[in-house]
Amino acid sequence: MSLIVTGTIGIDSIYTPQGHAEGVLGGSCTYFAAAASFYGPVRLVAAVGGDWPDSHRAVLERFANVDRTGLEVRPASKTFAWGGKYLGGMNSRETLYTELGVLAEPPPKVPDRFKDSRTVFLANTHPAVQLELLEQFPGRTLAVADTMDLWIKTAREPLGALLKKVDGLVLNFDEAELLTGRANTVSAARRLLDLGPRFVVVKKGEHGCIMAHRDGLAAMPAYPVEEVVDPTGAGDSFAGGLMGHLAAAAGNDIGSFETVRRALAHGTVAASFTIEAFSLDGLARLTREELDARFRTFAEMMRLR
Amino acid sequence: MSLIVTGTIGIDSIYTPQGHAEGVLGGSCTYFAAAASFYGPVRLVAAVGGDWPDSHRAVLERFANVDRTGLEVRPASKTFAWGGKYLGGMNSRETLYTELGVLAEPPPKVPDRFKDSRTVFLANTHPAVQLELLEQFPGRTLAVADTMDLWIKTAREPLGALLKKVDGLVLNFDEAELLTGRANTVSAARRLLDLGPRFVVVKKGEHGCIMAHRDGLAAMPAYPVEEVVDPTGAGDSFAGGLMGHLAAAAGNDIGSFETVRRALAHGTVAASFTIEAFSLDGLARLTREELDARFRTFAEMMRLR
Repeated sequence: MSLIVTGTIGIDSIYTPQGHAEGVLGGSCTYFAAAASFYGPVRLVAAVGGDWPDSHRAVLERFANVDRTGLEVRPASKTFAWGGKYLGGMNSRETLYTELGVLAEPPPKVPDRFKDSRTVFLANTHPAVQLELLEQFPGRTLAVADTMDLWIKTAREPLGALLKKVDGLVLNFDEAELLTGRANTVSAARRLLDLGPRFVVVKKGEHGCIMAHRDGLAAMPAYPVEEVVDPTGAGDSFAGGLMGHLAAAAGNDIGSFETVRRALAHGTVAASFTIEAFSLDGLARLTREELDARFRTFAEMMRLR
Repeated sequence: MSLIVTGTIGIDSIYTPQGHAEGVLGGSCTYFAAAASFYGPVRLVAAVGGDWPDSHRAVLERFANVDRTGLEVRPASKTFAWGGKYLGGMNSRETLYTELGVLAEPPPKVPDRFKDSRTVFLANTHPAVQLELLEQFPGRTLAVADTMDLWIKTAREPLGALLKKVDGLVLNFDEAELLTGRANTVSAARRLLDLGPRFVVVKKGEHGCIMAHRDGLAAMPAYPVEEVVDPTGAGDSFAGGLMGHLAAAAGNDIGSFETVRRALAHGTVAASFTIEAFSLDGLARLTREELDARFRTFAEMMRLR
């Protein structure tokens, strides 16, 4: 099933207690597509500026399953740039700077031959833009969106409209609390179902995730990683593994409780590789065999019968 | 396999966003024994004062598998009393008062007929007392201890001696960090193995638990509970379910990675009932059938193959 992702490509500078990476490849689209590409083809729609380094293109090209037809280069513009610093336990981070660049311009065009995409992931951006993008995939069978605190605070109305049109929502636990006013994650996730989606996945970083689905509840731990090098992109890689698995899933209801529940584990395992290195390095050196082996370890870790 | 628990019985007063319970039955031993009793007989060693209410005794008596021979009543003393208040997300609590009562006196005597106990749980108290209690079970095959920040800060040496003699350690994530100086829970748990135990279980409340064992790592989410009424005793009930399952487990190595890993799930499910009501109410109204049904749901929630 054709999978498409719309989102950002960024130039990141990251400081963590484990080290520092300057001007490396980042962005929601990038992490998502790289993780999803282990499961099958993935179409990418994003814009970069004239300053986008060839070395970043080279990293992206290593993921052969990523279709870059929708990668729009705007020579006179600047690529989105972000600098961040993680503290002690890597559970909190500070934004050092944000340079919107192409993100302050109109969103990238969806190539015509992508418009038949069936499985759609709308990475985090203004919900009005997400809505506009979503409408370009009339044949979609499953659409999932990510969002963030900024839109919850400043664009509640378009966000509400978006939630009525997507099948799934992925967000962080503090965003779930902000959106519902409920401090209990399970309760917040359940409440979000009332806003429209068939399932809501709440990401809790090192604590794993919770899913509320119209047909049930699920909880999953993070894969235990002993040395976290850089948490950047963990959530996007999680979404990539999840959606990659869904797009490749057999059956005619890939949004069913059981299918999404299993997909959470694929997202979990994909994210665990991302955080073991800076930028896309963890995914770039990953083989399908290693991914499968860790998935088996994870499955075994939770097998109770 | 005979299971014994040494710990406290308390008179609790608890305030949570869901309500308030005044002068109710609490204490580590109580929650532990109640949870473990679903799996088989459990021997209890604890002291109370002359002020211990008959109504509390009646609650404890509802758990028919709890052997109360080691329940020492000291007519001239006062029962340990604790008042606590939980805030918003129930992740933090404030101690309102602590009246040590019998806890400031010598520990309760272990009845002679309990000295053949094979499976031993030393609930949180001064590690020197835990060591003294431990030595009264020469025929033990598995001993597990709980500890807390107070002893990590003030009794590091006897705690070190204790850790060399127990098979397992159970503690909270912030305590694991305090003891090792490592903010990563997985890394902290692993490091604790160097101090002696064969396995270390790090409790993370609503985020489940992590186990580091000499033979592997495991992670498990909490059972998703939508309305937490009172988190008091969750950790002790978790330990009770875990140890109850271990004591009832077949085979001659109940401390093996695989056996303890499965036991984590029993602890998780037991704790989920405790937090759904004040005091022991959740466990007191629980049937074995309900416990088994929730265990099956939990197992199904994590089944990946």
